[in-house]
Amino acid sequence: MKEKRHSLAHILAMAVKEIYPDALIGTGPAIENGFYYDFGNVDIKEEDLLRIEKKMREILKKNISFENKIVSKEDARKIFVEEPYKLEILKDIKEKKVSLYKSGGFVDLCSGPHVKNTKNIDPESFLLQRTAGAYFKGSAKNPMLKRVYGIAFKNKKELENYIEKQKEAEKRDHRKIGKRLELFMFDDEVGQGLPLYLPKGGMIRYLLINFAMETYLQNGYQIVSTPHIAREDLWKRSGHLKFYKDDMYGPLSVDEKNYRLKPMNCPFHVKMYNSKIRSYKEFPLRWAEMGTVYRYEKSGELHGLTRPRGFTQDDAHIVCTKKQLKDEIIKALKITRYIYSTLGMKDLFFKLSVRNQQEKEKYFGTDKSWKEAENSLKEALLSFAPNYELDEGGAAFYAPKIDIDAMDAVGRRWQLSTIQVDFNLPFRFQMTYIDEKGKEKIPFMIHRALLGSIERFLGVYIEHTEGEFPLWLSPEQIWVVPVSEKAENYGKEVTAKIKEEGLRVVFQGTEETLSKTVRNSELQKIPYVLIVGEKEMKKETVSVRYRGKNEGPVNFSKFLERIKKETKIEKFEEKK
Amino acid sequence: MKEKRHSLAHILAMAVKEIYPDALIGTGPAIENGFYYDFGNVDIKEEDLLRIEKKMREILKKNISFENKIVSKEDARKIFVEEPYKLEILKDIKEKKVSLYKSGGFVDLCSGPHVKNTKNIDPESFLLQRTAGAYFKGSAKNPMLKRVYGIAFKNKKELENYIEKQKEAEKRDHRKIGKRLELFMFDDEVGQGLPLYLPKGGMIRYLLINFAMETYLQNGYQIVSTPHIAREDLWKRSGHLKFYKDDMYGPLSVDEKNYRLKPMNCPFHVKMYNSKIRSYKEFPLRWAEMGTVYRYEKSGELHGLTRPRGFTQDDAHIVCTKKQLKDEIIKALKITRYIYSTLGMKDLFFKLSVRNQQEKEKYFGTDKSWKEAENSLKEALLSFAPNYELDEGGAAFYAPKIDIDAMDAVGRRWQLSTIQVDFNLPFRFQMTYIDEKGKEKIPFMIHRALLGSIERFLGVYIEHTEGEFPLWLSPEQIWVVPVSEKAENYGKEVTAKIKEEGLRVVFQGTEETLSKTVRNSELQKIPYVLIVGEKEMKKETVSVRYRGKNEGPVNFSKFLERIKKETKIEKFEEKK
Repeated sequence: MKEKRHSLAHILAMAVKEIYPDALIGTGPAIENGFYYDFGNVDIKEEDLLRIEKKMREILKKNISFENKIVSKEDARKIFVEEPYKLEILKDIKEKKVSLYKSGGFVDLCSGPHVKNTKNIDPESFLLQRTAGAYFKGSAKNPMLKRVYGIAFKNKKELENYIEKQKEAEKRDHRKIGKRLELFMFDDEVGQGLPLYLPKGGMIRYLLINFAMETYLQNGYQIVSTPHIAREDLWKRSGHLKFYKDDMYGPLSVDEKNYRLKPMNCPFHVKMYNSKIRSYKEFPLRWAEMGTVYRYEKSGELHGLTRPRGFTQDDAHIVCTKKQLKDEIIKALKITRYIYSTLGMKDLFFKLSVRNQQEKEKYFGTDKSWKEAENSLKEALLSFAPNYELDEGGAAFYAPKIDIDAMDAVGRRWQLSTIQVDFNLPFRFQMTYIDEKGKEKIPFMIHRALLGSIERFLGVYIEHTEGEFPLWLSPEQIWVVPVSEKAENYGKEVTAKIKEEGLRVVFQGTEETLSKTVRNSELQKIPYVLIVGEKEMKKETVSVRYRGKNEGPVNFSKFLERIKKETKIEKFEEKK
Repeated sequence: MKEKRHSLAHILAMAVKEIYPDALIGTGPAIENGFYYDFGNVDIKEEDLLRIEKKMREILKKNISFENKIVSKEDARKIFVEEPYKLEILKDIKEKKVSLYKSGGFVDLCSGPHVKNTKNIDPESFLLQRTAGAYFKGSAKNPMLKRVYGIAFKNKKELENYIEKQKEAEKRDHRKIGKRLELFMFDDEVGQGLPLYLPKGGMIRYLLINFAMETYLQNGYQIVSTPHIAREDLWKRSGHLKFYKDDMYGPLSVDEKNYRLKPMNCPFHVKMYNSKIRSYKEFPLRWAEMGTVYRYEKSGELHGLTRPRGFTQDDAHIVCTKKQLKDEIIKALKITRYIYSTLGMKDLFFKLSVRNQQEKEKYFGTDKSWKEAENSLKEALLSFAPNYELDEGGAAFYAPKIDIDAMDAVGRRWQLSTIQVDFNLPFRFQMTYIDEKGKEKIPFMIHRALLGSIERFLGVYIEHTEGEFPLWLSPEQIWVVPVSEKAENYGKEVTAKIKEEGLRVVFQGTEETLSKTVRNSELQKIPYVLIVGEKEMKKETVSVRYRGKNEGPVNFSKFLERIKKETKIEKFEEKK
């Protein structure tokens, strides 16, 4: 597809030059799902795109060939004598010869590849989508050019598929849903990429965190808690200031010592591990923390909750012997499956990332440790998810890892969980334990974050559910709506009884019309609406509306039983 | 007592001069619980203190009078011609005349007050406690003097009481207990005043936070969550950078903008409040957050968990109308009482801090608002704790407040909870709501933190309980100890059944002797130890040892019932 998309960029430039003869050309590459081209000395508006598109289709139908030519820079300068941006680009090229592509009367400075002939491109397989301002060569010091974006696929059907998916994604955009349902917000005065959870989002976050933590506690984890800052000495020792500096927030000074916001929780856990002599008898040690970390992301790369600057990891470190490694990884994999299936995301994809065998020198740790760890991860996956993917060379510099993607309701894969071995920290902090024979040994350490980042997970989960959360995670589970003032007391009684069961119920008055309240409940994705009138009062029933569908009158006690059952989370039971 | 303590300081100097004629005198004031005196040109060691004490008692028995004299600085200089430190101090005095006190042959530069005669001091009412180095005039540029500390009370009995209490406090020192029970730690490489919770402390913290949060949720609070940093713009607007700068951590820079660690959560909550138009219908809004804040404390003032630099507040903000103010304060007071009585701290002391009527200009807000708020707080207290204390002039600059002290098991009072009104932030952030008549109004805002700081509370609570936490807060609730290998399986069965009930139980092997394990359980303050042998196995009983006391064999099912009941927390039921 790259050739097609790149060729379409040239065709776009040809069309623009035909329509706006004074336009100057910048650059025009293929990008994911399409292409763009930058133009100077012209103002192209969104409403002009159809006309340009039409012109492009005309050009495509002329069966124009793409021809490559290698010329001297001297000659190229002559060719682009009226294109100041191309001349600028030529200045940056160090080689003596440059590659050009010619299509019809249009020549571009370009090393390809391209289709042979425009007849290889289906004229219905592309669309121009939008325009934007873009600085020449990406620098604010240069003039602002007009960028025209297009999307292109193999054929019309694939194009339409993509547009359909884009629309679906837009409808599911967690930033929009988050705003509509009042889940979270961002604020420039607070700072970019720093989410503030409004009450409803705060409730979901709290429930999710408690669910994860309770799951870990049931599975032999212990809870630890550590600060959000530490002295640079710690980050020097851990290697973060060397290998991770660009992702860390700048220093702040306390008593003339520099501190950093934590980008990870690991060094704190290691410090606690090292606070006394450890024995194999304590193993496996499993320490979990809901640790809020801060990592620098370029402001252009921030994206709602899925890419924030501050986020909370459901982080844990497992310290164990070589022998325990495989079982601990299987255990973590099982908990992952339990958590995601409880949350209604059953399709998981497992990827094992190992060393590139050709570049062993790029990795930290002994050959023996790598083999042991890779084998443990592999064996664990073989017994758990034998159809895992293998990424040779994808390992972190400090050890191999398993990444887990979850598939959302519209078939998108999101990398969320990670289970990693680490050779680096045990070495740097000289972690040891006393084995059965009284010998001092270096333990194995596993990092794992199963929801990954609570923020990112929530972002994905909002898109997965379109804001229709399972009952147990819904901030407001039930609305009680009386049809008239006469039924208000009964409605309040019903509300009180539901509340006693520990459920989250809201009584709605009769200030609004019934139909408006019901409509509102749907906009707010309230799972249950109980409509009560005099009839219901007499018969001790409630008229149940579940996620927008009327179910008619139900005996109130029976309804209570039903939701009590529905809100119960099935616990993790490890199969032996 | 001040006169006695101050006089004892002079007597101390007299004794030292008699024993060490070359000693030079610095200064010697009365301090809390006692006195000290600084000496130059002499090395006094702890083992010398008894001898000095003895000499002091001899002097006291001589019935020496204290006489005041006012002399010219000129004359004073002559008197202290051989005391270079006194001459130094004289230089700093601007007045022409200075006050001296003469007792026997000893003269000191001093404005008193003193007892009339040493016969007014019980020779058994004081003790010299320790020595320390102290720079002259508190500056490291000056010579280091030797400071001798003494404690003094009305009589021998009170002195002994105090010593007893000191010993008790030392035994209860949460820093020692925290270390012994492996609850938390500090680490210099991480940074001073930043606690790291080890697994057992982490568990207690988690349980405590969940208990508080569940209590708030049951009482109509909602959960919010906000970042740990924000741009300086926010702190400028909130007034923190003006009024609270010294308590804030230095700036860190992100994308050329300065950020600060949050010392408080309020501005974030206000930002969320302002994210849409608010109506009286939403009131009272109660937003709670377990917010970890960072405040600078001088390193010398840090003290374990009770005075750290980073701590988590069980913070909440209530936004309401004037009419709702009193009820909301009563509600907060009731929740406070519920929380502390659940935690076994029933003695609470309430203090109302209002404006100093003479210095109204020092406070922010209108006279009307102050009167309304002070009245609401007063009325709330009158109906709830009529014997409250009044602190005129103790209000914050932004509004009146109620502070609540809890008394610990040895009679010490600790200020923990606070309920404050705030006029400042609603004004600075222009918070408004639409009232019943459609008019825009400024709401009342209450800050409240009932545990206060989780860290400080835990520090106090460890001292209060001496580490013997209530069953529901104990990180390990039950140990199961088989007396022999034959009983191991039964022990494991018992352990599994207890675990199924969601209790925290640890099975202890037979590697250690029974008596050693039992002793260990006491050191670790494990509430229940269940000892199981073949006899217990046959009869399906367990031999219960509860907090160090043997209770003999109990039917296991009955035991299960008992601890299930014991771990249940009685819920808050607001009495109407």
